[in-house]
Amino acid sequence: MTTAHHAPGETRPGGRTARTRKAVLTAVFEELGENGFGGLTMEKVASRSGIHLATVYRRWRCIEGLICELLTEVGSEVPLPDSGTLSGDLRALARSIAALYGEGRVRRLIEAVVSAAARDGQVASVLRTFFDERLALAGRMVQRAVDRGELPANTDPVQMMSALGAPFYYRILIARRPVDRDLADSAATAVRAAAHAGAYTKKDGGPANGTSPGG
Amino acid sequence: MTTAHHAPGETRPGGRTARTRKAVLTAVFEELGENGFGGLTMEKVASRSGIHLATVYRRWRCIEGLICELLTEVGSEVPLPDSGTLSGDLRALARSIAALYGEGRVRRLIEAVVSAAARDGQVASVLRTFFDERLALAGRMVQRAVDRGELPANTDPVQMMSALGAPFYYRILIARRPVDRDLADSAATAVRAAAHAGAYTKKDGGPANGTSPGG
Repeated sequence: MTTAHHAPGETRPGGRTARTRKAVLTAVFEELGENGFGGLTMEKVASRSGIHLATVYRRWRCIEGLICELLTEVGSEVPLPDSGTLSGDLRALARSIAALYGEGRVRRLIEAVVSAAARDGQVASVLRTFFDERLALAGRMVQRAVDRGELPANTDPVQMMSALGAPFYYRILIARRPVDRDLADSAATAVRAAAHAGAYTKKDGGPANGTSPGG
Repeated sequence: MTTAHHAPGETRPGGRTARTRKAVLTAVFEELGENGFGGLTMEKVASRSGIHLATVYRRWRCIEGLICELLTEVGSEVPLPDSGTLSGDLRALARSIAALYGEGRVRRLIEAVVSAAARDGQVASVLRTFFDERLALAGRMVQRAVDRGELPANTDPVQMMSALGAPFYYRILIARRPVDRDLADSAATAVRAAAHAGAYTKKDGGPANGTSPGG
């Protein structure tokens, strides 16, 4: 299990450290679901989890640290399909994302992370790294489709997977309406057609669109 | 000019009220560009604009009010093209959005609004209304394309225009990398192909996807 704020060796599955972590992250998740990010404090997390406030502060430092760790935990739960066809993979992944973001507290977690990133450069960096890693993993389904001859050889996996995810974040953060299965199926149909139309082809002579540094 | 926090009659073009408004919104925009949302305060806005702090508070109440009004002002500047073809319209609109979000202070404004919406229900409501209105206006290009026979008759304008915008917000808020013209052209190519593939068709027996209430 990847964690952002302590060395891997500190976590022993089933040990006291792991139990503390689980109790605290569960409390953050529940507080987000009930009261949103606006009212979230270290004190509420400590009280709800039954873990000493000093312990929570020592290990996570601030609410932003907790939010980042919860994102890594929750986001990593989305399974990456390998169904044998591109359309099967796209639809399965989009539906898994929709199922995750159908939960109010996960929507609020995304809002919280994006909101914290606007104020805190360290959160912004964690957010970017997390999504870069997820995109790289999900991009394997694009590469498999290229290998099977289902997509143009110069299709950029990161561009295509970014395009699959984009409608969900638009729905949550901008349109501010529920994520549903219709959105998932629309997103899957859309990126497949767009990829065939050459919308995500790699540019010559430079890094692929969406992976250039800066900000 | 649409404003969120006072009656239209209060603004006389060229009058003292209009000058105050312009000075304050310009100060907010400049502060966002230089210091981001994290350090933005009513005091800094008053100091930078040369407008009395009491006046700023009386008229806008809080930073969130200022941010909402600036969004309405800046967002309304994007021209809505009518080039005679769907692909011409999509490309022109996408490039206008890219030009706007190519500016660091506009990216920071979007971050600020989304961030404020996560903490404040009134901001969330202003944000949603603003984008609903913009989508309805932009959707006219979809209807014109349907009328010209360029798109299936049951294409949903709101779904399609949401899909055109989504990659920009993903790039700004999630990928946290610069918006450029390549992204605009990719988005325009993608939604056109996706629309032809039926990704944005209206569902029977209910409101179109993306316009259902709730959230």
